[in-house]
Amino acid sequence: MKLVRYGAPGAEKPGLIDAEGRVRDLSGAVPDIAGEALHPEGIAKLGGIDPESLPLVDGTPQDDLRLGACVGSIGKFICIGLNYADHAEEAGMPIPPEPIIFNKWTSSVVGPNDAIQIPRDSVKTDWEVELGVVIGKPGVYIDEADALSHVAGYCVVNDVSEREFQIERAGTWDKGKGCDTFGPTGPWLVTPDEAGDIDNLDMWLDVDGERMQTGTTATLIFKVPHLIAYCSRFMSLQAGDVISTGTPPGVGMGMKPPRYLKGGEMVSLGIAGLGEQRSPVLAPA
Amino acid sequence: MKLVRYGAPGAEKPGLIDAEGRVRDLSGAVPDIAGEALHPEGIAKLGGIDPESLPLVDGTPQDDLRLGACVGSIGKFICIGLNYADHAEEAGMPIPPEPIIFNKWTSSVVGPNDAIQIPRDSVKTDWEVELGVVIGKPGVYIDEADALSHVAGYCVVNDVSEREFQIERAGTWDKGKGCDTFGPTGPWLVTPDEAGDIDNLDMWLDVDGERMQTGTTATLIFKVPHLIAYCSRFMSLQAGDVISTGTPPGVGMGMKPPRYLKGGEMVSLGIAGLGEQRSPVLAPA
Repeated sequence: MKLVRYGAPGAEKPGLIDAEGRVRDLSGAVPDIAGEALHPEGIAKLGGIDPESLPLVDGTPQDDLRLGACVGSIGKFICIGLNYADHAEEAGMPIPPEPIIFNKWTSSVVGPNDAIQIPRDSVKTDWEVELGVVIGKPGVYIDEADALSHVAGYCVVNDVSEREFQIERAGTWDKGKGCDTFGPTGPWLVTPDEAGDIDNLDMWLDVDGERMQTGTTATLIFKVPHLIAYCSRFMSLQAGDVISTGTPPGVGMGMKPPRYLKGGEMVSLGIAGLGEQRSPVLAPA
Repeated sequence: MKLVRYGAPGAEKPGLIDAEGRVRDLSGAVPDIAGEALHPEGIAKLGGIDPESLPLVDGTPQDDLRLGACVGSIGKFICIGLNYADHAEEAGMPIPPEPIIFNKWTSSVVGPNDAIQIPRDSVKTDWEVELGVVIGKPGVYIDEADALSHVAGYCVVNDVSEREFQIERAGTWDKGKGCDTFGPTGPWLVTPDEAGDIDNLDMWLDVDGERMQTGTTATLIFKVPHLIAYCSRFMSLQAGDVISTGTPPGVGMGMKPPRYLKGGEMVSLGIAGLGEQRSPVLAPA
């Protein structure tokens, strides 16, 4: 299944992508793609619905129909840092001995084709295509062998990052990761049965059509089951939490000279089987 | 006004402390002490209610009536690090040139008298009494001069911290700040009109009756209006977000030798006018 949330910001309805790529209205079945709807029982219930029985929604995703983030009410947006060896190298940082966990403020979450707003005083707004893991079954101290049973699905995340805020302003990375619009999430929440081999997904990111990032989840240092188990040692995980697993090489910070986003540019990105995002960039307001 | 949330975990009801210190049921007026109820209009509405007109709730807070965190559905739990010069010194860290912002995972939030659960594999679970600021009016790029108009109220926070998770395990502090039960919040959300001079509040923390922390908000490096304005440069603030403003000296990590919490101990703490917490400590499960 490919689950979506469509409609105006803050008023998104749940939907499902049918075999022809059209959006079907799921609001008769669940209130949102969030919380209990993501539990294994919730996903199983949705999986039992014949898409053809659901009302067609007017409009085409990524065209005239706005999509919201594919998960509603994200409780924790947990990010993993430097999880591709070659990205760690371009960032000038050592490969971490265990996963680096950091936070994306949940108020940063937007839809996959919403604008990225460069913050005031920003000089280094950067991009990061990432595989997002959406938690379904809650848990804590999860065994790695059991970890995938806690996954509701996968999605594309752009871990937009302001490098000067993140790195040059005392303290943790939290100033540069959670500015409003810095968390484009979606288009789809793809359930594991349709997501393919998550250890071998190609991913890419373009700015104005120029290829910046090319990667594959095959080169993740810490794989998804390990990340879920590891995170759950430091917090309980709830349905609707998202773990974004890190980015491959090709971020603006790593270029010589570095290259950052400017108003008017278009960031497009995608992961094989998980869909694509197209985010216009807005200059500081 | 002193606002509370009482009842079983996950099923708390909104309440108000009357002139005799008894809990009155506010559930006829608002669904929760959360979201829109914290907007200035929401607080004004609650302020217009005669407490004597509200049903008395059976039980006594901090005795047989459980209190939840005084804010429901906290969206962002934003913490400020090293914001007392003498605490920075005991932590062996320089005074930051601008506020250090870090994150407490919201799943760590518990009531003021709930147990603190030492996590598995923890060897350095520590305490931090802090002044919490609860956002009422949403905003971004807030002017410092206008910042206090965004405050719904103040509360006591214990920024429980696992130092080995926080500092010795690669990456940001986020592994050691948001374990489940690491965010006791309350007992009360005290509205600004009753909170006194927030720049001059005495605060203290005991472990098993032994005084560990003694401080006053008078020695905050970065004051509340500056913190609100500063945080709002890196994220928008919503009603129900909490900014915990840092801790004065006396944490276990700073002692010679360091001293950490053990199962069976009792942590009690308070801030003048904002109430007290009593948290029993549980050994790792």
